[in-house]
Order: sequence, then structure tokens, then C-alpha cells
Amino acid sequence: MSVTAAQGFVAAGVAAGLKSTGALDVALVVNEGPEYTGVGVFTSNRVVAAPVVWSRQVVADGRVDAVVLNSGGANAATGPEGFADTHHTAERVADSLVAAGRDVSSGDVAVCSTGLIGVRLPMDRLLSGVDDAVAGLGAHGDQAALAIMTTDTVPKTAVATRSGWTVGGMAKGAGMLAPGLATMLCVITTDASVDPARARAALAAATRSTFDRVDSDGCMSTNDTVLLLASGATGIVPAPGEFEDALTDVCATLARGLVADAEGASHDIAVTVAGATTEAAAEAVARAITRSNLFKAAIFGNDPNWGRIISAAGTVPEDVAPFDPTTLDVTVNGVQVCRASGVGEPRELVDLSGREVLITLDLHAGDAQATVWTNDLTHDYVHENSAYSS
Amino acid sequence: MSVTAAQGFVAAGVAAGLKSTGALDVALVVNEGPEYTGVGVFTSNRVVAAPVVWSRQVVADGRVDAVVLNSGGANAATGPEGFADTHHTAERVADSLVAAGRDVSSGDVAVCSTGLIGVRLPMDRLLSGVDDAVAGLGAHGDQAALAIMTTDTVPKTAVATRSGWTVGGMAKGAGMLAPGLATMLCVITTDASVDPARARAALAAATRSTFDRVDSDGCMSTNDTVLLLASGATGIVPAPGEFEDALTDVCATLARGLVADAEGASHDIAVTVAGATTEAAAEAVARAITRSNLFKAAIFGNDPNWGRIISAAGTVPEDVAPFDPTTLDVTVNGVQVCRASGVGEPRELVDLSGREVLITLDLHAGDAQATVWTNDLTHDYVHENSAYSS
Repeated sequence: MSVTAAQGFVAAGVAAGLKSTGALDVALVVNEGPEYTGVGVFTSNRVVAAPVVWSRQVVADGRVDAVVLNSGGANAATGPEGFADTHHTAERVADSLVAAGRDVSSGDVAVCSTGLIGVRLPMDRLLSGVDDAVAGLGAHGDQAALAIMTTDTVPKTAVATRSGWTVGGMAKGAGMLAPGLATMLCVITTDASVDPARARAALAAATRSTFDRVDSDGCMSTNDTVLLLASGATGIVPAPGEFEDALTDVCATLARGLVADAEGASHDIAVTVAGATTEAAAEAVARAITRSNLFKAAIFGNDPNWGRIISAAGTVPEDVAPFDPTTLDVTVNGVQVCRASGVGEPRELVDLSGREVLITLDLHAGDAQATVWTNDLTHDYVHENSAYSS
Repeated sequence: MSVTAAQGFVAAGVAAGLKSTGALDVALVVNEGPEYTGVGVFTSNRVVAAPVVWSRQVVADGRVDAVVLNSGGANAATGPEGFADTHHTAERVADSLVAAGRDVSSGDVAVCSTGLIGVRLPMDRLLSGVDDAVAGLGAHGDQAALAIMTTDTVPKTAVATRSGWTVGGMAKGAGMLAPGLATMLCVITTDASVDPARARAALAAATRSTFDRVDSDGCMSTNDTVLLLASGATGIVPAPGEFEDALTDVCATLARGLVADAEGASHDIAVTVAGATTEAAAEAVARAITRSNLFKAAIFGNDPNWGRIISAAGTVPEDVAPFDPTTLDVTVNGVQVCRASGVGEPRELVDLSGREVLITLDLHAGDAQATVWTNDLTHDYVHENSAYSS
């Protein structure tokens, strides 16, 4: 059900011919109210695609009436012409919705694009696709989820239902990137009544512990966007914490889906750093590990190479994560292979034949912890990303 | 000639049986004076091998009489026992040299180790090897260079001769790391008269623009060590700048040798960031690019994917490197494929068939620039580092 699981939302997914395969490539999500809360978080990359520049402006006032998303082209590194293309797309959505009897202004239409960087979108096809999508609006969240896929092998959707209200969402993005693809898009809807301030705070908190903790290959996209729309259709204002929990559940499910579908990956790796002085310190150490190519290649080879884990931890400056580098413990899939920064249980005891790998590094410096998800570094990753695949 | 090109140094390389292949695996370099300047730079990793802890103490007073180096074991993550092993090795070098009629204290013997992490060294063999090395001392810099190799395919040596004095050196390290190997070692000798303060400043400056600018896979070793020994045997005090230039030449040659011998690499990539506000800003941006797996995989595929270059540049915070993300120019092997952060010359014009790749990113923010060397991300890198190779 994806983005149409919550009341007050209609969606569509159509094939506009942006993808040469004829697959669905334009999605539209429309909020039918009575409330129109809309907030977003975007890539922290300073080099951003035109739709990100546009959509940041759209969400600034806390209102979003519709979101149009296309695969088959990222509209990144396309200059002022690319921004004009995004602007025209939003205007076409508004015009077409007005013609269909809905009252929408282009300034309340968010735009997301994903696909190759550095090429203009074929606007004729895209604008026709927008018209088709408006004509096809309905309870079609599943089609919308299909239409935003690029190299994803499966659509990613999630729904959390609470007492009388629902949060649902869709996401696209292979954890590891295909050539030039600009990467993660996500739209989440809810029929709870959530004002923009609460929505903004909840989304920031939820993404911080979910999408932000997925670090498949350390590469930050120019297009990453997560949007949250609330229709208030149920009239229910969730109790404090309740909405935040449901939203985090949905984000966690979608984020986990990205890792599980990471192209070329043969392992999903959860790196938990415990015993840190702060959560930020734990996250910094976990991220240093998840960005170590040597560690990731070792996991690909089913090698519980703890030397690479503590070596990566050692690259984090002491002011960022205080710990004694001689007292580190490392557990891989339940086996404590490293004790006090030295040899622990025999590494032969570790079973890495499954897809999921659980790493715990105990810093013995405090009580805080954090988990970052990543994938292994494989031949297929190199192949997919070296353009030899195209 | 390596470390024995300069007067006042003898060296040896012997096979002690640390390597199962029977190859040379213990090297010894001895300064015969009359001066005994010795300084070093070491890995910035907080997780360091026992020999690094030891040798940092040795160089603290600016004096080094001898350096013993072994391949076949890194003596990293070996706990207090590993430190005792390093201590015993230094004592054996001193004892054996004293028995041979030389006056050396163990506190002036630096120790370097390279090889697998997390395993103790076979001390019987190593100590016998030390005795053999002392017995074999002579103008054997080339054997010493062979004895420190691990997965290197060729020894790396360099010599710079100036008016009456010489700087020579040896290094080991594949730019990309083999499973568990703890990586770069380098010993440089000179017969110029250089006091510890000058040696320290010159070595810091030379390594900053050479070894520190090689970032093959972003992984920092637990064992990296560069030592500089000066015998003063020529009695010549080089003019200001002259020694510093010669030392930088030797370091640059050795660093370039590491990149050229990087395991699994098919391209050597020089990333030059120009138009930066400061050299540090230029270096930060260059390093973000050289650490992008997407960029490195693209070069492996002979794909001049400039979108990945500006996308990596965009991950550098503005306070680290101020620039306007909409005005970036990118040149790949002489072809300006990106202009003003948009499409430039056709990427088909770029020839990436050679091993060397020259990338220039112009930030248009100032006059400073920096170059960082790296390698591409290849199937062979994954293979070599995944333990499937062993």
C-alpha cells in the first residue's frame, strides 16, 4: 500500500518513456487534506541536483500538496536549464491537477529525480507522463513505489498502523550505487494530524537513527531526499512519542530494505559500537569501520579480520571519540575474536556464511552506543560501478 | 644502493625463516657516524603496533644508531607480549653489535615490523636472523630493501646526490594492502651533517607533500614508519633548502613507487585540486575524491565520470574548503569534461587507456592547490583483500 496506506492520499505510477525499458518511471503522490503538512530532509552534499534546490524551497513553509518523482534521470549537474526543467515539472503538476478540479499551486509541489547525472531530462515525455499520472490517481501506492526504482531489484515499502491512524512510505535506492545514479528517494505519508513543527522534529530524529545510519559505500548522493506528508484525514493527534515511534519504524524498515537490496553485496553488516562516551562518538567509530574498504573486502571473503576493525577505529581522533586503544573488544557474529586489542577466540569459530553479519566493538569508555549498517565490498560492486556493466 | 648509498652506513638483508617462502625477511641498517642523528614520523593511527611504540621512544632524543626491520609479521595487536618481543629484538641487535666491536645501546635501536596483524613473531628465528644480519653487515642496501618487502613486486629505492653528499632510501608497501598487512616502512640515510632539529623539520615537510599525499585506499596502517638517519660522514652541512630539496626528491620517488606497485591497481591517479583558498582546503577536497569508491571504480572502467568527482567534492564542509558548488571545472587527462558544474567536452574524447590518470578540479575560489595520488578500485583489489587470495 506504500504511500496510499494512509487516508487522504492518492498516487499513481506511469511509464513516460524516460526508461528505455518501458518500465514505470513517473510517480505522483497527492495529499487530499484536510491538512497539508509537508517537511523534508535532503542530502548534505553541497553539490545538489536541481530538484533538491527546488524542493527545499517548497518544504520551507511546512506545506506540500503533491510530490512528483521520476526515475530515468537525476537532473543533477544540469545547470540553470536543469532548474528550469524542475520548475516546469512542478508547474505542469499544478496545472494538470487544477484542470482535474484540484486546487494546487506549483509552489507546493515537491519534485524528486533519480537516475544518471549530467544529462537533461526529456521534458516532452516527462510532462506527458505528469498528465497521465494525474489522470491515473487512485490508491496506487504500489505503482508509485515501482515507478521510482532504478537498479533496485524490489520496491521498498513499509506501513505502521497505530490506534486509528497509519504511517506508510516508499523508498528507492540500491545501497550501493549503479553508475552515475543519484540515489535515495523516500516519501512517507500519514493520516494523523501532525503540524509542521512536530513533523520536522520527528523526521529529523527518525532519519538520524535510520537512513543516516546506512552507509553502504560512504558516497553521498546529490539527490537524496526524504519527504513526510501528513493529511490529518483521521483527525487524530497522536500522543507524544507515539507518532515518532511509528515514523521511526517505517524509516527503519525502508532503510533496512535499502541495505538488503544493495547491488553487488553479499553481506549486510551491522556495526555496533558500544561503551562509547556519547552516541556521536559511537557513531563516528562505527562509520570509520563501515568506510574501511579493507574491512568490507574481508567480510566479502568471509574473513572475521578484527585487525582491520580496530585499525579503522584507531583512525578516529581522540577528541571525537575518547577511548583507550589497548582495551578494545571485538565480537563477530557472537564470537569474541579480539580481547583487549589482542587475540581472543579463534577466528575459525566465526560463521560468516549467512547474509547478515553482526559486529560489536566495545570501547570500554562509557555507556553510549550506535549501530551503522553497511555492505561488503565485492567483485559485483566494482563491476556494477565501473561502467563495465553498461 | 638504497640506504648504503650515503657514506657512514652499512646494512644487511637476511633470510631468518619468518617468511615461509625462504625469502629475505630481516634487514639491519647501522649508522657508523661520526654523527648519529635519527628522527622519524609514524602512523597517526591510535591503534599502533608494538614497534611503533618502541621506535617513537627511540627517536625522541634525536639519536638512532641502528634500525632493524622484519617482514613476515607486523607485531600489531599482540599486547604486552608483543612489546616485550620488540624490546628483546632491540636488545639483541645492541648485544650482537657490541659483540662485533661496535658501541650501541638498545635504546638507540629502532625497530620496524610488517606483515600479518594479530600474530606473535617467531622470536627464535628473528633473533637468529639479527645475529646473521650483524655478521653480514656491508654495502648491502639492496638486500635490505628486498628483506622488507611483503606483497611488493619490486623493491623501492631512491638516491639523490648533491655537491659532495647523498640522500638514499628504501621503502616497502603496496599502495593497496594485502590481507592483514601493516603497511608502509621507509628508512632514509644521508651522509650530510644534519642536526636532529633540522632533520625533524625536513622530514615532516617532506613526508607532508609526498607519503602523506598517497592515499591508495584510505586505510591507515598500525605500523607506518619513516626514519631518517644522518651520519655526517662527509662533514658537509648543506645550504638552507638544499638538504630539504634532496630529501623531498627521495621521498617523492619512493612514494611514487608505492603507488606504481599498488596491488590490484590498473591506474595511478593524480587528483589535483586547484583554485582553492588554501593548500589545506585543496588537500581536503582532493582526499574526498581519492576516497570515493564510486570515482575509483569508474576509473577502473575507463569512465571519466566527472559527476562522481564533483559529488565527492561536495561532501567537504564549507568551513574546510570554501567554494561555490556551481562553478566547478573538471579536466580528465587534458579534456575539460565539466564546466561550471555542468556538461563540458564530450567524455568520449578522454583517453583512459594508459596507467596514469591526471584529474584537475578547479574550485575557482583562490590560488592554492594540492595533489593527492591514489589508485583505481579493481576486481584485483577486492580479490587481494578478501582473503580469497590466500
